Amino acid sequence: MWSKTKLTSLLNIAVPIIQAPMIVQKPLVPLAAAVSNAGGLGSLGCAEMSVAELEQRIKEMRKATNNPFNLNFFLHQSPVYDDEIDSSVKELIEPFYRKLKLELPSDTASNGLGAFDDERLALLVQHKPAMVSFHFGCPTTKITEDLKAAGIVVAATATNVDEALALQAAGVDVVVAQGWEAGGHRGSFEPNFEDVGIGTMALVPQIADAVNVPVVAAGGIGDGRGITAALALGAEGVWMGTAFLSCAETPITPVHRQALLSSKDDDTHLSRAFSGRPCRARRTPYSEQMANGRPALQDFPLMYNYSGPLKKIGIARDDLDYQFLLYGQAAALNRETTAEELIARLKQEATDIMRGFSTYDS
Amino acid sequence: MWSKTKLTSLLNIAVPIIQAPMIVQKPLVPLAAAVSNAGGLGSLGCAEMSVAELEQRIKEMRKATNNPFNLNFFLHQSPVYDDEIDSSVKELIEPFYRKLKLELPSDTASNGLGAFDDERLALLVQHKPAMVSFHFGCPTTKITEDLKAAGIVVAATATNVDEALALQAAGVDVVVAQGWEAGGHRGSFEPNFEDVGIGTMALVPQIADAVNVPVVAAGGIGDGRGITAALALGAEGVWMGTAFLSCAETPITPVHRQALLSSKDDDTHLSRAFSGRPCRARRTPYSEQMANGRPALQDFPLMYNYSGPLKKIGIARDDLDYQFLLYGQAAALNRETTAEELIARLKQEATDIMRGFSTYDS
Repeated sequence: MWSKTKLTSLLNIAVPIIQAPMIVQKPLVPLAAAVSNAGGLGSLGCAEMSVAELEQRIKEMRKATNNPFNLNFFLHQSPVYDDEIDSSVKELIEPFYRKLKLELPSDTASNGLGAFDDERLALLVQHKPAMVSFHFGCPTTKITEDLKAAGIVVAATATNVDEALALQAAGVDVVVAQGWEAGGHRGSFEPNFEDVGIGTMALVPQIADAVNVPVVAAGGIGDGRGITAALALGAEGVWMGTAFLSCAETPITPVHRQALLSSKDDDTHLSRAFSGRPCRARRTPYSEQMANGRPALQDFPLMYNYSGPLKKIGIARDDLDYQFLLYGQAAALNRETTAEELIARLKQEATDIMRGFSTYDS
Repeated sequence: MWSKTKLTSLLNIAVPIIQAPMIVQKPLVPLAAAVSNAGGLGSLGCAEMSVAELEQRIKEMRKATNNPFNLNFFLHQSPVYDDEIDSSVKELIEPFYRKLKLELPSDTASNGLGAFDDERLALLVQHKPAMVSFHFGCPTTKITEDLKAAGIVVAATATNVDEALALQAAGVDVVVAQGWEAGGHRGSFEPNFEDVGIGTMALVPQIADAVNVPVVAAGGIGDGRGITAALALGAEGVWMGTAFLSCAETPITPVHRQALLSSKDDDTHLSRAFSGRPCRARRTPYSEQMANGRPALQDFPLMYNYSGPLKKIGIARDDLDYQFLLYGQAAALNRETTAEELIARLKQEATDIMRGFSTYDS
């Protein structure tokens, strides 16, 4: 069966489908657990969790599933605050704040979103999730060694061949090859890398040629066609976020769900306006304004200080123009269903395509 | 056999591989004819040819192959020259001209590169190549009707679903779904569309869902893995340019060929610096300088007036930093071989992957 790959063996899962970690308004435990229960690998985006919350979510996952799951963390550099950029960004955001009758943000110099640390590492070693994945950089060999010694599979994102080689050298077990199409934050090590995004079709075979560890394809994979394509390109599994966003278990508002289901191929762009790092999201008046002429913006995560108040209003009013809707270029392929049903369909679609190929070949 | 698709039936070719039209220093007749003779569809990029040259090349193709081939044309809008942009672009290019001891270009307001016209249409109707393809826009129904009445298959490039629907409505027989990864000019109807490029993985299934005509996948396809992926995504064939650039029949310099064979996944970017339209090319000091801050540039094809003298020096000196090396994100997959051998290998690679899938499935 095609669905047995090096990835499924490594993780002891039934289908090589990883639900990408995402951060929405409410915890994604129900979605992640449903994916794991259906034989895929559910993920929680833990970057914004306190240590206490992280431990709480791990316990909730253990209650909700006996199957393997993944926890994702950020490895971003500490931001360098810039006073001049603060002034110029405030000029750019002023019209939006004025329209919404908001005061300009006062404390923009710091943000509580820290990178992965020793305390979290110790907690993971203690609780032993099946997989831990990293975004925005290369884990140290101490991190990979400690996690692997605890029996945890270590994954991390690469957006080009050099990053994939660095991850392999650091002891990472699974490379997530994230193509240009992917929704959400690009996992590039280099924080301001906007223009040189490599598409999934070109990226996966080149990374598969470069490394010996299993490669998981991310970006633009929306159905069984994409899964078959990813495996043909040399991936041992897929990493799908957007496709799971419209699942019944995902706690998003009806307006958000409808936006996904009626989305178009060119809805999104890569924007640093939300967080400071390039992130694929639905274009909004705010993100388009902040992209014009490519102004200097504050480092990740400081831009949240400027975009956050707008998002808060957007959520309160259910107005998508002021929210950050992170999704990829294949959102138009999304279906409204449960995670279990989606995984069953994805598997059937891929199986049908592969059967078709074997018929052609005879 | 998988290699029989709607595209191969329509064109009466043996394998669903179209060699993308390209423009290099010397005519590509030997390459295109070799591809057609090997069972694929060879293409000539005819946009820069006079009517007399076009007729000459058609005759050369007829001599070199009895098999179907494709002729490609541009449908760009007439440029609007802008005096202020002329001054600001001259400021930007001045350091490069100074270094090379060149005088700044004097006649920048016009460029002889016209769009497809009635004279060419009449010549095509007379000579009846198997296929005529268009880039940069939607052909009129008069164009598609006249060509189709002459038994010519009409293809055109779409970079999003809306463009694909417009092409189908105009009577186009084959939609080339050009993903972000593709080398050379993006075929978007909108000339300044730089940021919203949709990757091949996301684009092909969405266009395949939207139109009834056969879809050909372009962008990032470098070997049999990419071909299998494209067919899995719903394409009836592939459009490969970069892969054929390093073929023995392609008249490029050894330095250029070596650059391709030693290229990396992130060598290229999308730049308007060369022609005025977004074009994926190897990054050069010139193209990077012209991308900084996204300055206003002249319309296509007027930017050739500013970039052309640099290219001329680059060619004379065999210096890649001053040439425009158009290639895609999968150039690192290129092989040094003949077109016939490349097509045989591509076919075998795809067959092997599909056989593997059918084994998994049993």
